[in-house]
Amino acid sequence: MRRKILKYPTEPLEVWPERSVSELAEGMLWTGFQGRKLAEAIEVWARMLRKRNIVIWLGLAGALVPAGMRRVISYLIKRRMIDVLVSTGANLYHDAYEAKGKKHYIGTHMTDDVKLRKHKVDRIYDVFADEAGFYKFDNWIEKGFSYGLKDNYPYSSREITFLLGKTLSKVGREKDSILVSAYRKGVPIFCPALNDSALGFSIMFANRKGRRVKVGKTIRYIRKRILIDALKDVEESSRITERAKRTGVVYLGGGVPKNFIQQTAVIASYQTRHDRSHNYAVQITTDSPHWGGLSGGTFEEAQSWGKIHRRAGKVTCFADATIALPIIVHALSEKFKRLRREVPIFEWGKNGELKLSYETMRL
Amino acid sequence: MRRKILKYPTEPLEVWPERSVSELAEGMLWTGFQGRKLAEAIEVWARMLRKRNIVIWLGLAGALVPAGMRRVISYLIKRRMIDVLVSTGANLYHDAYEAKGKKHYIGTHMTDDVKLRKHKVDRIYDVFADEAGFYKFDNWIEKGFSYGLKDNYPYSSREITFLLGKTLSKVGREKDSILVSAYRKGVPIFCPALNDSALGFSIMFANRKGRRVKVGKTIRYIRKRILIDALKDVEESSRITERAKRTGVVYLGGGVPKNFIQQTAVIASYQTRHDRSHNYAVQITTDSPHWGGLSGGTFEEAQSWGKIHRRAGKVTCFADATIALPIIVHALSEKFKRLRREVPIFEWGKNGELKLSYETMRL
Amino acid sequence: MRRKILKYPTEPLEVWPERSVSELAEGMLWTGFQGRKLAEAIEVWARMLRKRNIVIWLGLAGALVPAGMRRVISYLIKRRMIDVLVSTGANLYHDAYEAKGKKHYIGTHMTDDVKLRKHKVDRIYDVFADEAGFYKFDNWIEKGFSYGLKDNYPYSSREITFLLGKTLSKVGREKDSILVSAYRKGVPIFCPALNDSALGFSIMFANRKGRRVKVGKTIRYIRKRILIDALKDVEESSRITERAKRTGVVYLGGGVPKNFIQQTAVIASYQTRHDRSHNYAVQITTDSPHWGGLSGGTFEEAQSWGKIHRRAGKVTCFADATIALPIIVHALSEKFKRLRREVPIFEWGKNGELKLSYETMRL
Amino acid sequence: MRRKILKYPTEPLEVWPERSVSELAEGMLWTGFQGRKLAEAIEVWARMLRKRNIVIWLGLAGALVPAGMRRVISYLIKRRMIDVLVSTGANLYHDAYEAKGKKHYIGTHMTDDVKLRKHKVDRIYDVFADEAGFYKFDNWIEKGFSYGLKDNYPYSSREITFLLGKTLSKVGREKDSILVSAYRKGVPIFCPALNDSALGFSIMFANRKGRRVKVGKTIRYIRKRILIDALKDVEESSRITERAKRTGVVYLGGGVPKNFIQQTAVIASYQTRHDRSHNYAVQITTDSPHWGGLSGGTFEEAQSWGKIHRRAGKVTCFADATIALPIIVHALSEKFKRLRREVPIFEWGKNGELKLSYETMRL
Repeated sequence: MRRKILKYPTEPLEVWPERSVSELAEGMLWTGFQGRKLAEAIEVWARMLRKRNIVIWLGLAGALVPAGMRRVISYLIKRRMIDVLVSTGANLYHDAYEAKGKKHYIGTHMTDDVKLRKHKVDRIYDVFADEAGFYKFDNWIEKGFSYGLKDNYPYSSREITFLLGKTLSKVGREKDSILVSAYRKGVPIFCPALNDSALGFSIMFANRKGRRVKVGKTIRYIRKRILIDALKDVEESSRITERAKRTGVVYLGGGVPKNFIQQTAVIASYQTRHDRSHNYAVQITTDSPHWGGLSGGTFEEAQSWGKIHRRAGKVTCFADATIALPIIVHALSEKFKRLRREVPIFEWGKNGELKLSYETMRL
Repeated sequence: MRRKILKYPTEPLEVWPERSVSELAEGMLWTGFQGRKLAEAIEVWARMLRKRNIVIWLGLAGALVPAGMRRVISYLIKRRMIDVLVSTGANLYHDAYEAKGKKHYIGTHMTDDVKLRKHKVDRIYDVFADEAGFYKFDNWIEKGFSYGLKDNYPYSSREITFLLGKTLSKVGREKDSILVSAYRKGVPIFCPALNDSALGFSIMFANRKGRRVKVGKTIRYIRKRILIDALKDVEESSRITERAKRTGVVYLGGGVPKNFIQQTAVIASYQTRHDRSHNYAVQITTDSPHWGGLSGGTFEEAQSWGKIHRRAGKVTCFADATIALPIIVHALSEKFKRLRREVPIFEWGKNGELKLSYETMRL
Repeated sequence: MRRKILKYPTEPLEVWPERSVSELAEGMLWTGFQGRKLAEAIEVWARMLRKRNIVIWLGLAGALVPAGMRRVISYLIKRRMIDVLVSTGANLYHDAYEAKGKKHYIGTHMTDDVKLRKHKVDRIYDVFADEAGFYKFDNWIEKGFSYGLKDNYPYSSREITFLLGKTLSKVGREKDSILVSAYRKGVPIFCPALNDSALGFSIMFANRKGRRVKVGKTIRYIRKRILIDALKDVEESSRITERAKRTGVVYLGGGVPKNFIQQTAVIASYQTRHDRSHNYAVQITTDSPHWGGLSGGTFEEAQSWGKIHRRAGKVTCFADATIALPIIVHALSEKFKRLRREVPIFEWGKNGELKLSYETMRL
Repeated sequence: MRRKILKYPTEPLEVWPERSVSELAEGMLWTGFQGRKLAEAIEVWARMLRKRNIVIWLGLAGALVPAGMRRVISYLIKRRMIDVLVSTGANLYHDAYEAKGKKHYIGTHMTDDVKLRKHKVDRIYDVFADEAGFYKFDNWIEKGFSYGLKDNYPYSSREITFLLGKTLSKVGREKDSILVSAYRKGVPIFCPALNDSALGFSIMFANRKGRRVKVGKTIRYIRKRILIDALKDVEESSRITERAKRTGVVYLGGGVPKNFIQQTAVIASYQTRHDRSHNYAVQITTDSPHWGGLSGGTFEEAQSWGKIHRRAGKVTCFADATIALPIIVHALSEKFKRLRREVPIFEWGKNGELKLSYETMRL
């Protein structure tokens, strides 16, 4: 028994120059603490990629796009290392903003924010942005994008992000955009709290303010009546987990994206009367279990709910995603220079119906 | 100058029995670190309560209701120490669950979750719940509550929570319910990510599964077509901050509720072309600024965005809300045994219009 | 089985004014998360106080004295709610500093530290202090206190803190001093890393710089040769746990004090060939288990080492001690308005020998 | 002004396989949050290495050796990327343990610690160790190492670690040992709280238990009288910062090592009446500033004390060192495939005197 417990010795990590990221990660597998967890996260994700008939969800919370992670996310989409994205509104907003050629700036968290206010500079920890740029971009969302939406049609957030990706794909500088990559690759993006972002409120402005039209000599405002049907999101998203043979989840941060993906397992199990808990699970978080919230909750806790399978491959790594994600994705890019996967193909009906098929791709 | 910097000595906290919570908090004002911040949070909230023509927002994230905080929140509503609530779906779900007479249970975070799964016990850190109870309750939401909703009417989450509070107010055991208290006191509750909770997906089931009806000998399913209009939430909520002379915000945790309340300041400033940033701000959080996300973001950062006023009374206390909230609210209850406030009265139109007036009340 | 798991319902916390701290804490026992843990910490400590023949250790790390906690600690000593103290050097330094009538000041963590430097103001998060005051006090430690120490005598830190307490007890304003209370009440104070503080380096200055003496016309420096024997600390401290029938531990923060107290169990078990692991354990910490260090380590982990007894009453509360400690101690002060305890009496030999007896006291 | 604030755009991080660690880190310089800080930490450390006449301190806290970091630390010593080490006792203990050929084992933090206790397996988060192995090793420290120490000689911890390194250098499997590398390379190791570890208490056992000797027919115990002079540590360490032209500090975790290195600046400034604050500063920590303790304290706070120079190159990265350290050191190993440095050479007198010179080395 004792021999079984003390079976595999740790191996102190060696240092050598020109070591690739994946080699480094393999070395870290034999260390301890969060360094080992990071290496294990790569292993679990790699196992997902090697599995047949799996749908891989990515939950994206925290200001990762302003922090320079959009190319990493769009890499994951382009190489189909993920199949569905659930994101906060802010990340999509900032992605679209950069897709339109705007920039974020190197700033500092040690600054005088009242002075920044005076200069209309908005701060996201150590990243700065130009409020005038946001203002113009909000205007484009309102007038350039939203006016093209249908009135009184119940959009899911997935449909909105699809249309936004499509619109942006016609703009020049979009090659690393999350929205555009997802549009092109058929990766659905859900944004269950779209209303909780500048993306949401700029669309709302089209409803509220309307477009100024001159009818003869009088000026009238034609208001849009765009509908974002919150329930349609639940319907569409849960269908993915229902239809999929297997699911894997990767959470960058917690928040709505994590819970939203977790709940698809509960709904799918209700609906199918089978255990549809997720089969693989990776989370990168800076939250802690002891605060009791879902963002820092363990996958063990999730097993009690039937959200994560009782024999799931699972790992939590406590780290800032701006450190962990680049390492994980570089390691995956090396492990899978060529990736042959059965990629899920989503065909959506108007009322949230889903046809899910798989196609073997070389990526 | 030096004398100005070293002006007020700290006062080591004395201990005496039968000291009331508010006296203890006053003592903590002269200490340091988060103990002092907790005491300052009480002071800033008290200043809000003494101000005329102010609307006080409360953002509620994290599993505070399962953790036994619902009576504390409903106390705040009944005494009108808050005027608008923005909550995660889960907190409202668990509040409604208890309003229907169901219970959460004392559990432990050191447990075998696979065993819990076998017994259909769901764990929320150290609180346990009965999955069969949830199942029945979900069923009630679907059939008992949702079937009463109108089809094709674009509901805001505020309208849904109002109707849910109304329905629950007819049930017996509701006296400490957040939803019921808010319904009775005219306190609007927004739940911008209602779809991200069992509340949301149980309403969705009414749309998806429909009601079984026998027509002659054939069985048919009549599906509901409930619409939750995500944009209406932004419209209604931002109108509050637009109309209010002054606003105060209290955040328990971050997540969608914090961002949603913060953005009303941005929208209102856009719309009115005046600075509508929040005038008072308190947050209790276990997140940290250095992870860059909004949940742990400082109010200084928020000042750069014009979400918090540059001269706002503001304080962040880093603590678990299950510790901080009971202390703060007990201290307020002592400071304001009688509270005379100009309480905002909200009258809502069908399309999100708002008439805001104030009425002096003795609470 | 299921009935056994779901046995005790949580009880949402009620609010009422003039509720005493201990009543509030009793209410919090029926909630969840860290609020419940805080209440449980009070329970476990209370159980220690009711036990016969127990020695209660307190480990004190983090800048709790500058943060205004010295009266709370000295209350615990005076009422003999603890029996031995292990502290960082800094806490004792700042305690002695205030015992000499000096002050710390209300400051802010949002400040310009380079400007503070210019004004010779030292910052401890949101507490300020006068560097000139420290300078004078260091001088007093060097010349007023250290010159009275014997040369070439191997002092344990316990002996140093005893002598310092004795010296300070003759000064006027000492009534809430930790050092003085401990001296008077026979509570030993260990400071295993005394060299890692201004207390340590000011004593060292007596050795290094020496006292200026005029011998005829020539000036000479008579250097002290004070010896602080680090190993004597281990010897003395481990003897306490060896001799005690039972031990309880309370950790405020981690660091050296926690590890030092934990290791007495290991040494005592080696030495006595019996299980001398601690029988009761409470910790208040802001660190987390997942970083792998001892400061945030769980008591479960400590059980694997035989530091904490396998059936110990134990609780960890994740909170800032400046919040948790005042509440815990006020609650204890109410629960034990009269405390009758078998208080351990320590009689020390010159070479670290210990005679431990108990005396029933009414406190 | 505004143009000056918004000068350098962030650059979303690209992904490409076979990217070296240093290239990845350079990419991360243009992102945000802790990912950028990690990259900046490499930059600041690199600047230290390029500076003439600098002494670089490393503070080592947390169980980094059990977590597999000893080769990384010994690499830093061998390549003289650090010049002085201050460590907790535990890290040196575990390093010596592995130098003697013993192992730590891959474990898990999700385990039954009472069961581990039964099997005499000690847990350090997710690393396991064999208690019987520790027991034997403690015995070796007591009898194999400590009996060789002089009686009544006031050792500094630096002298003890030097002798331990020397002893271990004669053992076979020592090539990656921190203690042995430091002994060979002339890098002093301070362990200010040596008494707070198994290293300390095993040396103490030589004093307490003594060696069993047969004198004729009677058995006697000859006790050692080893003296570890805590004050000598302060004297020796502060002399380094006094004599050095410039100093740089790198902190892995906080605790005693950080404070001990910080205080050398204060002592040296007292002693020399010049500003001897540290000129470069890097810290990797999982603690937070808002808890008020030194471990999570900012370098800005340290500037108010004159511990860090007001114009110092400084960066704090909030991350687990088991993730950050491997990346930083691999990046440095690539940046400095050949390193030409003026390496400080320490010559120590018996009473803590220090002669410091520099020698240009190619490393």
